[in-house]
Amino acid sequence: MPDYTLYGFANTASTSTHWLLIELAAASGVTYDFVDVNFTTRAQRDATYLALNPRGRVPTLIVDGHTPVPESTACVLVLAERHPAAHFEPARDSPLRARFLETLVFVANTLLPAFRDWFYAEKDQTDGIVAHGIRLLALQRIKGVFEQLDAQVKEGGYLVSTADEGPTAVDFLFAATLSWDAFVDRLAGTYPNLQTYKSLMRSRPSWKVLNDKEGIESELADGIKPWEEQYLDF
Amino acid sequence: MPDYTLYGFANTASTSTHWLLIELAAASGVTYDFVDVNFTTRAQRDATYLALNPRGRVPTLIVDGHTPVPESTACVLVLAERHPAAHFEPARDSPLRARFLETLVFVANTLLPAFRDWFYAEKDQTDGIVAHGIRLLALQRIKGVFEQLDAQVKEGGYLVSTADEGPTAVDFLFAATLSWDAFVDRLAGTYPNLQTYKSLMRSRPSWKVLNDKEGIESELADGIKPWEEQYLDF
Repeated sequence: MPDYTLYGFANTASTSTHWLLIELAAASGVTYDFVDVNFTTRAQRDATYLALNPRGRVPTLIVDGHTPVPESTACVLVLAERHPAAHFEPARDSPLRARFLETLVFVANTLLPAFRDWFYAEKDQTDGIVAHGIRLLALQRIKGVFEQLDAQVKEGGYLVSTADEGPTAVDFLFAATLSWDAFVDRLAGTYPNLQTYKSLMRSRPSWKVLNDKEGIESELADGIKPWEEQYLDF
Repeated sequence: MPDYTLYGFANTASTSTHWLLIELAAASGVTYDFVDVNFTTRAQRDATYLALNPRGRVPTLIVDGHTPVPESTACVLVLAERHPAAHFEPARDSPLRARFLETLVFVANTLLPAFRDWFYAEKDQTDGIVAHGIRLLALQRIKGVFEQLDAQVKEGGYLVSTADEGPTAVDFLFAATLSWDAFVDRLAGTYPNLQTYKSLMRSRPSWKVLNDKEGIESELADGIKPWEEQYLDF
Protein backbone atom coordinates (compact mmCIF):
# COMPACT_ATOMS: atom_id res chain seq x y z
CA MET A 1 0.00 0.00 0.00
CA PRO A 2 1.36 3.43 -0.86
CA ASP A 3 1.70 6.04 1.91
CA TYR A 4 -0.88 8.25 0.20
CA THR A 5 -3.50 8.19 -2.52
CA LEU A 6 -4.33 11.51 -4.15
CA TYR A 7 -7.61 12.01 -5.99
CA GLY A 8 -7.18 14.92 -8.36
CA PHE A 9 -7.35 16.36 -11.85
CA ALA A 10 -4.64 18.01 -13.95
CA ASN A 11 -3.96 21.71 -13.23
CA THR A 12 -6.69 22.25 -10.64
CA ALA A 13 -6.86 22.66 -6.85
CA SER A 14 -5.22 19.23 -6.48
CA THR A 15 -2.03 20.32 -8.25
CA SER A 16 -0.36 21.86 -5.18
CA THR A 17 -0.78 18.62 -3.23
CA HIS A 18 0.52 16.60 -6.18
CA TRP A 19 3.55 18.90 -6.46
CA LEU A 20 4.35 18.49 -2.75
CA LEU A 21 3.97 14.70 -3.01
CA ILE A 22 6.51 14.70 -5.86
CA GLU A 23 8.88 16.70 -3.66
CA LEU A 24 8.38 14.30 -0.74
CA ALA A 25 8.89 11.26 -2.95
CA ALA A 26 12.29 12.64 -3.96
CA ALA A 27 13.32 13.93 -0.52
CA SER A 28 11.84 11.37 1.87
CA GLY A 29 10.94 8.31 -0.21
CA VAL A 30 7.21 8.88 0.22
CA THR A 31 5.05 6.70 -2.06
CA TYR A 32 1.69 7.66 -3.52
CA ASP A 33 -0.89 6.77 -6.12
CA PHE A 34 -2.67 9.38 -8.21
CA VAL A 35 -6.31 8.70 -9.09
CA ASP A 36 -7.73 10.78 -11.91
CA VAL A 37 -11.08 12.46 -11.15
CA ASN A 38 -12.10 13.43 -14.64
CA PHE A 39 -13.70 16.88 -14.56
CA THR A 40 -14.69 16.66 -18.22
CA THR A 41 -17.09 13.81 -17.36
CA ARG A 42 -18.02 15.50 -14.03
CA ALA A 43 -16.54 12.55 -12.13
CA GLN A 44 -16.23 14.79 -9.05
CA ARG A 45 -20.04 14.57 -8.73
CA ASP A 46 -20.19 10.76 -9.02
CA ALA A 47 -21.73 9.01 -6.02
CA THR A 48 -18.55 7.01 -5.41
CA TYR A 49 -16.47 10.18 -5.24
CA LEU A 50 -19.05 12.05 -3.14
CA ALA A 51 -18.90 9.21 -0.61
CA LEU A 52 -15.20 10.00 -0.22
CA ASN A 53 -15.59 13.78 -0.36
CA PRO A 54 -19.15 15.10 0.10
CA ARG A 55 -18.06 18.54 -1.13
CA GLY A 56 -17.43 17.15 -4.62
CA ARG A 57 -14.14 18.99 -4.98
CA VAL A 58 -10.54 17.94 -5.48
CA PRO A 59 -8.16 17.15 -3.92
CA THR A 60 -8.91 14.32 -1.59
CA LEU A 61 -5.78 12.89 0.01
CA ILE A 62 -6.08 9.44 1.54
CA VAL A 63 -3.75 9.17 4.51
CA ASP A 64 -2.66 5.74 5.81
CA GLY A 65 -5.13 4.05 3.50
CA HIS A 66 -8.21 5.19 5.41
CA THR A 67 -8.52 8.90 6.30
CA PRO A 68 -9.77 11.07 3.42
CA VAL A 69 -8.55 14.67 3.74
CA PRO A 70 -10.25 17.28 1.53
CA GLU A 71 -9.11 20.91 0.91
CA SER A 72 -5.75 21.61 -0.73
CA THR A 73 -4.65 23.90 2.10
CA ALA A 74 -5.28 21.15 4.65
CA CYS A 75 -3.58 18.53 2.43
CA VAL A 76 -0.30 20.45 2.09
CA LEU A 77 -0.33 21.26 5.82
CA VAL A 78 -0.95 17.62 6.75
CA LEU A 79 1.89 16.50 4.44
CA ALA A 80 4.29 19.10 5.87
CA GLU A 81 3.42 18.05 9.44
CA ARG A 82 3.82 14.35 8.77
CA HIS A 83 7.27 14.72 7.21
CA PRO A 84 9.15 17.16 9.45
CA ALA A 85 12.55 16.05 8.09
CA ALA A 86 11.66 17.57 4.71
CA HIS A 87 11.29 21.04 6.35
CA PHE A 88 8.19 22.11 4.46
CA GLU A 89 6.90 23.97 7.52
CA PRO A 90 8.74 26.07 10.13
CA ALA A 91 9.01 24.29 13.49
CA ARG A 92 6.56 25.32 16.22
CA ASP A 93 9.24 27.33 18.03
CA SER A 94 10.50 29.04 14.84
CA PRO A 95 10.01 32.82 14.55
CA LEU A 96 8.69 32.10 11.04
CA ARG A 97 5.85 29.92 12.34
CA ALA A 98 3.17 32.62 12.68
CA ARG A 99 4.01 34.10 9.29
CA PHE A 100 3.76 30.64 7.72
CA LEU A 101 0.31 29.99 9.18
CA GLU A 102 -1.12 33.40 8.37
CA THR A 103 0.16 33.32 4.78
CA LEU A 104 -1.34 29.88 4.34
CA VAL A 105 -4.67 31.17 5.68
CA PHE A 106 -4.49 34.32 3.53
CA VAL A 107 -4.05 32.24 0.37
CA ALA A 108 -6.83 29.90 1.52
CA ASN A 109 -9.43 32.48 2.49
CA THR A 110 -8.69 35.32 0.05
CA LEU A 111 -6.94 34.07 -3.09
CA LEU A 112 -8.53 30.64 -3.55
CA PRO A 113 -12.17 31.88 -3.24
CA ALA A 114 -11.41 34.70 -5.69
CA PHE A 115 -10.09 32.15 -8.19
CA ARG A 116 -13.19 30.04 -7.63
CA ASP A 117 -15.29 33.09 -8.63
CA TRP A 118 -12.97 33.91 -11.54
CA PHE A 119 -13.21 30.50 -13.14
CA TYR A 120 -16.76 29.50 -12.14
CA ALA A 121 -18.81 32.74 -12.07
CA GLU A 122 -20.56 31.72 -15.28
CA LYS A 123 -21.38 28.29 -13.89
CA ASP A 124 -22.44 29.57 -10.44
CA GLN A 125 -24.57 32.36 -11.91
CA THR A 126 -27.17 32.17 -14.63
CA ASP A 127 -27.32 35.98 -14.91
CA GLY A 128 -24.53 37.16 -17.23
CA ILE A 129 -24.39 40.70 -15.83
CA VAL A 130 -23.94 39.36 -12.31
CA ALA A 131 -21.33 36.85 -13.51
CA HIS A 132 -19.38 39.71 -15.11
CA GLY A 133 -19.62 41.74 -11.88
CA ILE A 134 -18.45 38.76 -9.84
CA ARG A 135 -15.47 38.33 -12.18
CA LEU A 136 -14.51 41.99 -11.92
CA LEU A 137 -14.61 41.78 -8.12
CA ALA A 138 -12.66 38.49 -8.20
CA LEU A 139 -10.00 40.05 -10.43
CA GLN A 140 -9.67 43.01 -8.09
CA ARG A 141 -9.22 40.60 -5.15
CA ILE A 142 -6.67 38.46 -7.03
CA LYS A 143 -4.69 41.60 -7.83
CA GLY A 144 -4.88 42.68 -4.19
CA VAL A 145 -3.36 39.38 -3.08
CA PHE A 146 -0.72 39.46 -5.83
CA GLU A 147 0.29 42.96 -4.76
CA GLN A 148 0.71 41.90 -1.13
CA LEU A 149 2.55 38.67 -1.89
CA ASP A 150 4.75 40.46 -4.44
CA ALA A 151 5.90 42.65 -1.53
CA GLN A 152 6.31 39.57 0.67
CA VAL A 153 8.74 37.77 -1.68
CA LYS A 154 10.72 40.93 -2.42
CA GLU A 155 14.08 39.56 -1.27
CA GLY A 156 14.12 37.00 -4.07
CA GLY A 157 13.13 34.25 -1.67
CA TYR A 158 10.03 32.27 -0.88
CA LEU A 159 6.88 33.49 0.85
CA VAL A 160 8.10 32.85 4.38
CA SER A 161 11.74 31.83 4.02
CA THR A 162 14.87 32.79 2.15
CA ALA A 163 16.03 31.13 -1.08
CA ASP A 164 18.69 29.31 1.00
CA GLU A 165 16.16 27.91 3.44
CA GLY A 166 13.97 26.50 0.68
CA PRO A 167 10.22 26.65 0.10
CA THR A 168 7.49 25.72 2.58
CA ALA A 169 4.10 24.12 1.97
CA VAL A 170 2.49 27.52 1.31
CA ASP A 171 4.80 28.07 -1.68
CA PHE A 172 3.46 24.97 -3.42
CA LEU A 173 -0.11 26.02 -2.59
CA PHE A 174 0.43 29.52 -3.99
CA ALA A 175 2.77 28.79 -6.91
CA ALA A 176 0.43 26.13 -8.31
CA THR A 177 -2.30 28.78 -8.71
CA LEU A 178 -0.01 30.97 -10.85
CA SER A 179 -0.20 28.54 -13.76
CA TRP A 180 -3.90 27.72 -13.65
CA ASP A 181 -4.17 29.35 -17.04
CA ALA A 182 -2.35 31.70 -19.41
CA PHE A 183 -4.29 34.73 -18.19
CA VAL A 184 -3.25 34.19 -14.56
CA ASP A 185 0.32 33.36 -15.58
CA ARG A 186 0.51 36.63 -17.52
CA LEU A 187 -1.13 38.66 -14.75
CA ALA A 188 1.32 37.30 -12.17
CA GLY A 189 4.17 38.16 -14.53
CA THR A 190 3.27 41.87 -14.35
CA TYR A 191 4.43 41.84 -10.69
CA PRO A 192 8.26 41.87 -10.91
CA ASN A 193 8.93 39.93 -7.70
CA LEU A 194 6.25 37.37 -8.50
CA GLN A 195 7.85 36.90 -11.92
CA THR A 196 11.17 36.06 -10.21
CA TYR A 197 9.31 33.84 -7.73
CA LYS A 198 7.53 31.94 -10.52
CA SER A 199 10.89 31.23 -12.18
CA LEU A 200 12.38 30.13 -8.85
CA MET A 201 9.55 27.66 -8.22
CA ARG A 202 9.55 26.42 -11.83
CA SER A 203 13.29 25.79 -11.72
CA ARG A 204 12.75 22.96 -9.23
CA PRO A 205 13.21 19.43 -10.60
CA SER A 206 9.75 18.59 -9.18
CA TRP A 207 8.14 21.11 -11.58
CA LYS A 208 9.36 19.08 -14.55
CA VAL A 209 7.95 15.86 -13.07
CA LEU A 210 4.66 17.62 -12.32
CA ASN A 211 4.52 18.92 -15.89
CA ASP A 212 5.14 15.49 -17.35
CA LYS A 213 2.11 14.28 -15.38
CA GLU A 214 -0.24 17.26 -15.62
CA GLY A 215 0.79 18.98 -18.87
CA ILE A 216 0.65 22.45 -17.33
CA GLU A 217 3.11 24.26 -19.60
CA SER A 218 1.41 23.01 -22.73
CA GLU A 219 -1.91 24.28 -21.33
CA LEU A 220 -0.28 27.68 -20.76
CA ALA A 221 0.97 27.63 -24.34
CA ASP A 222 -2.64 27.38 -25.54
CA GLY A 223 -2.99 31.06 -24.65
CA ILE A 224 -5.68 33.15 -23.07
CA LYS A 225 -9.24 31.81 -23.13
CA PRO A 226 -11.77 33.70 -25.27
CA TRP A 227 -13.91 34.78 -22.28
CA GLU A 228 -10.84 36.18 -20.51
CA GLU A 229 -9.89 38.51 -23.36
CA GLN A 230 -12.26 41.28 -22.24
CA TYR A 231 -10.38 41.43 -18.91
CA LEU A 232 -6.91 41.77 -20.47
CA ASP A 233 -6.69 45.48 -19.70
CA PHE A 234 -5.69 44.70 -16.12
CA MET B 1 3.62 43.01 29.41
CA PRO B 2 0.62 40.78 28.69
CA ASP B 3 1.17 37.55 26.75
CA TYR B 4 -0.96 38.86 23.87
CA THR B 5 -2.51 42.06 22.55
CA LEU B 6 -5.57 41.66 20.36
CA TYR B 7 -6.65 44.41 17.98
CA GLY B 8 -10.31 43.94 17.21
CA PHE B 9 -13.83 45.27 17.11
CA ALA B 10 -17.01 43.94 18.76
CA ASN B 11 -18.79 41.10 16.95
CA THR B 12 -16.56 40.92 13.88
CA ALA B 13 -13.82 38.60 12.58
CA SER B 14 -11.82 39.28 15.76
CA THR B 15 -14.50 37.80 18.03
CA SER B 16 -13.37 34.18 17.67
CA THR B 17 -9.83 35.08 18.75
CA HIS B 18 -11.19 37.13 21.66
CA TRP B 19 -13.38 34.21 22.74
CA LEU B 20 -10.43 31.80 22.69
CA LEU B 21 -8.29 34.26 24.69
CA ILE B 22 -11.02 34.40 27.34
CA GLU B 23 -10.98 30.58 27.48
CA LEU B 24 -7.18 30.52 27.76
CA ALA B 25 -7.18 33.18 30.46
CA ALA B 26 -9.49 30.97 32.56
CA ALA B 27 -7.80 27.64 31.75
CA SER B 28 -4.12 28.55 31.50
CA GLY B 29 -3.72 31.99 33.11
CA VAL B 30 -2.97 33.66 29.76
CA THR B 31 -3.00 37.49 29.94
CA TYR B 32 -4.01 39.81 27.12
CA ASP B 33 -4.97 43.37 26.28
CA PHE B 34 -7.79 44.21 23.88
CA VAL B 35 -7.34 47.28 21.69
CA ASP B 36 -10.47 48.60 20.06
CA VAL B 37 -10.19 49.24 16.30
CA ASN B 38 -13.29 51.35 15.82
CA PHE B 39 -14.96 50.35 12.54
CA THR B 40 -17.47 53.21 12.81
CA THR B 41 -14.61 55.71 12.39
CA ARG B 42 -12.84 53.41 9.85
CA ALA B 43 -9.90 53.04 12.26
CA GLN B 44 -8.95 49.82 10.43
CA ARG B 45 -7.77 52.03 7.53
CA ASP B 46 -5.68 54.40 9.70
CA ALA B 47 -1.99 54.56 8.80
CA THR B 48 -0.99 53.38 12.28
CA TYR B 49 -3.17 50.28 12.01
CA LEU B 50 -2.14 49.58 8.41
CA ALA B 51 1.50 49.60 9.55
CA LEU B 52 0.58 46.71 11.84
CA ASN B 53 -1.72 44.94 9.39
CA PRO B 54 -1.42 46.09 5.75
CA ARG B 55 -4.64 44.25 4.89
CA GLY B 56 -6.66 46.66 7.05
CA ARG B 57 -8.69 43.88 8.59
CA VAL B 58 -9.19 42.60 12.13
CA PRO B 59 -8.00 40.71 14.06
CA THR B 60 -4.34 41.37 14.55
CA LEU B 61 -2.88 39.36 17.41
CA ILE B 62 0.44 40.55 18.81
CA VAL B 63 2.42 37.57 20.04
CA ASP B 64 5.26 38.03 22.56
CA GLY B 65 4.98 41.81 22.20
CA HIS B 66 6.38 41.91 18.68
CA THR B 67 4.95 39.52 16.08
CA PRO B 68 1.65 40.75 14.54
CA VAL B 69 -0.49 37.85 13.31
CA PRO B 70 -3.42 38.72 11.03
CA GLU B 71 -6.29 36.42 9.96
CA SER B 72 -8.67 34.96 12.55
CA THR B 73 -8.07 31.39 11.37
CA ALA B 74 -4.31 31.80 11.86
CA CYS B 75 -4.81 33.51 15.24
CA VAL B 76 -6.89 30.69 16.74
CA LEU B 77 -4.48 28.10 15.34
CA VAL B 78 -1.45 29.93 16.76
CA LEU B 79 -3.15 30.18 20.18
CA ALA B 80 -4.09 26.49 20.16
CA GLU B 81 -0.52 25.52 19.22
CA ARG B 82 1.10 27.70 21.85
CA HIS B 83 -1.05 26.34 24.71
CA PRO B 84 -1.13 22.57 24.20
CA ALA B 85 -2.21 21.93 27.80
CA ALA B 86 -5.57 23.59 27.06
CA HIS B 87 -6.30 20.95 24.36
CA PHE B 88 -7.77 23.31 21.77
CA GLU B 89 -6.24 21.28 18.95
CA PRO B 90 -5.85 17.51 18.53
CA ALA B 91 -2.24 16.37 18.93
CA ARG B 92 -0.25 15.67 15.78
CA ASP B 93 -0.59 11.91 16.23
CA SER B 94 -4.32 12.07 16.99
CA PRO B 95 -6.72 10.43 14.52
CA LEU B 96 -8.75 13.68 14.76
CA ARG B 97 -5.87 15.83 13.51
CA ALA B 98 -6.66 15.75 9.76
CA ARG B 99 -10.35 16.40 10.40
CA PHE B 100 -9.45 19.36 12.60
CA LEU B 101 -7.22 20.94 9.95
CA GLU B 102 -9.60 20.40 7.05
CA THR B 103 -12.60 21.74 8.96
CA LEU B 104 -10.58 24.81 9.91
CA VAL B 105 -9.64 25.29 6.24
CA PHE B 106 -13.22 24.70 5.07
CA VAL B 107 -14.52 27.42 7.39
CA ALA B 108 -11.66 29.72 6.33
CA ASN B 109 -11.93 29.27 2.58
CA THR B 110 -15.66 28.69 2.09
CA LEU B 111 -17.71 30.16 4.95
CA LEU B 112 -15.69 33.27 5.83
CA PRO B 113 -15.45 34.59 2.22
CA ALA B 114 -19.19 34.00 1.76
CA PHE B 115 -19.87 36.06 4.89
CA ARG B 116 -17.56 38.77 3.56
CA ASP B 117 -19.74 38.91 0.42
CA TRP B 118 -22.94 38.75 2.45
CA PHE B 119 -22.09 41.73 4.65
CA TYR B 120 -20.01 43.81 2.22
CA ALA B 121 -21.47 43.22 -1.27
CA GLU B 122 -23.00 46.70 -1.24
CA LYS B 123 -19.68 48.27 -0.22
CA ASP B 124 -17.57 46.19 -2.64
CA GLN B 125 -19.95 46.79 -5.56
CA THR B 126 -21.44 50.04 -6.79
CA ASP B 127 -23.88 48.18 -9.05
CA GLY B 128 -26.95 47.21 -7.00
CA ILE B 129 -28.01 44.37 -9.30
CA VAL B 130 -24.57 42.80 -9.05
CA ALA B 131 -24.52 43.31 -5.25
CA HIS B 132 -27.86 41.49 -5.03
CA GLY B 133 -26.52 38.65 -7.18
CA ILE B 134 -23.41 38.40 -5.04
CA ARG B 135 -25.57 38.20 -1.90
CA LEU B 136 -27.74 35.46 -3.37
CA LEU B 137 -24.65 33.44 -4.25
CA ALA B 138 -23.15 34.13 -0.80
CA LEU B 139 -26.35 32.97 0.92
CA GLN B 140 -26.36 29.78 -1.15
CA ARG B 141 -22.75 29.13 -0.11
CA ILE B 142 -23.43 29.86 3.57
CA LYS B 143 -26.36 27.43 3.47
CA GLY B 144 -24.12 24.83 1.80
CA VAL B 145 -21.59 25.09 4.63
CA PHE B 146 -24.32 25.05 7.31
CA GLU B 147 -25.78 21.90 5.77
CA GLN B 148 -22.41 20.12 5.82
CA LEU B 149 -21.45 21.25 9.32
CA ASP B 150 -24.95 20.43 10.61
CA ALA B 151 -24.23 16.84 9.52
CA GLN B 152 -20.77 17.01 11.08
CA VAL B 153 -22.02 17.92 14.59
CA LYS B 154 -24.87 15.41 14.46
CA GLU B 155 -23.85 13.48 17.59
CA GLY B 156 -24.49 16.51 19.81
CA GLY B 157 -20.78 17.23 20.06
CA TYR B 158 -18.35 19.70 18.61
CA LEU B 159 -17.10 19.92 15.03
CA VAL B 160 -14.22 17.49 15.47
CA SER B 161 -14.64 16.08 18.97
CA THR B 162 -17.31 14.75 21.30
CA ALA B 163 -19.05 16.84 23.95
CA ASP B 164 -16.89 15.06 26.57
CA GLU B 165 -13.64 15.93 24.83
CA GLY B 166 -14.49 19.64 24.63
CA PRO B 167 -14.27 22.12 21.79
CA THR B 168 -11.24 22.83 19.60
CA ALA B 169 -10.08 26.10 18.04
CA VAL B 170 -12.29 25.57 15.00
CA ASP B 171 -15.41 25.62 17.20
CA PHE B 172 -14.65 29.14 18.39
CA LEU B 173 -13.91 30.21 14.81
CA PHE B 174 -17.19 28.78 13.53
CA ALA B 175 -19.49 29.48 16.49
CA ALA B 176 -18.50 33.16 16.55
CA THR B 177 -19.84 33.57 13.01
CA LEU B 178 -23.29 32.23 14.04
CA SER B 179 -24.06 35.38 16.02
CA TRP B 180 -22.72 37.98 13.59
CA ASP B 181 -26.28 39.22 13.28
CA ALA B 182 -29.88 38.21 13.91
CA PHE B 183 -30.35 36.98 10.33
CA VAL B 184 -27.41 34.56 10.57
CA ASP B 185 -28.44 33.46 14.06
CA ARG B 186 -31.94 32.70 12.78
CA LEU B 187 -30.67 30.94 9.64
CA ALA B 188 -28.34 28.72 11.70
CA GLY B 189 -31.27 27.91 13.97
CA THR B 190 -33.15 26.30 11.08
CA TYR B 191 -30.55 23.49 11.10
CA PRO B 192 -31.52 21.32 14.10
CA ASN B 193 -28.02 20.11 14.96
CA LEU B 194 -26.55 23.59 14.58
CA GLN B 195 -29.26 24.89 16.94
CA THR B 196 -28.09 22.36 19.57
CA TYR B 197 -24.48 23.25 18.81
CA LYS B 198 -25.14 26.99 19.24
CA SER B 199 -26.68 26.34 22.66
CA LEU B 200 -23.76 24.12 23.63
CA MET B 201 -21.21 26.79 22.73
CA ARG B 202 -23.25 29.59 24.32
CA SER B 203 -23.57 27.63 27.57
CA ARG B 204 -19.83 28.06 28.19
CA PRO B 205 -18.89 30.54 30.94
CA SER B 206 -16.58 32.24 28.40
CA TRP B 207 -19.62 33.21 26.28
CA LYS B 208 -20.95 35.33 29.15
CA VAL B 209 -17.60 37.09 29.56
CA LEU B 210 -17.40 37.64 25.79
CA ASN B 211 -20.92 39.09 25.80
CA ASP B 212 -20.13 41.47 28.63
CA LYS B 213 -17.27 42.81 26.52
CA GLU B 214 -18.76 42.70 23.01
CA GLY B 215 -22.51 43.03 23.62
CA ILE B 216 -23.36 40.31 21.11
CA GLU B 217 -26.71 39.16 22.51
CA SER B 218 -28.04 42.70 22.70
CA GLU B 219 -27.04 43.14 19.04
CA LEU B 220 -28.96 39.95 18.17
CA ALA B 221 -31.96 41.33 20.06
CA ASP B 222 -32.02 44.32 17.70
CA GLY B 223 -33.46 41.97 15.07
CA ILE B 224 -32.93 41.53 11.38
CA LYS B 225 -31.44 44.44 9.41
CA PRO B 226 -33.72 46.14 6.87
CA TRP B 227 -31.60 45.11 3.85
CA GLU B 228 -31.68 41.47 4.97
CA GLU B 229 -35.48 41.27 5.06
CA GLN B 230 -35.79 40.53 1.35
CA TYR B 231 -33.67 37.37 1.89
CA LEU B 232 -35.81 36.02 4.76
CA ASP B 233 -37.48 33.40 2.58
CA PHE B 234 -34.44 31.13 2.95
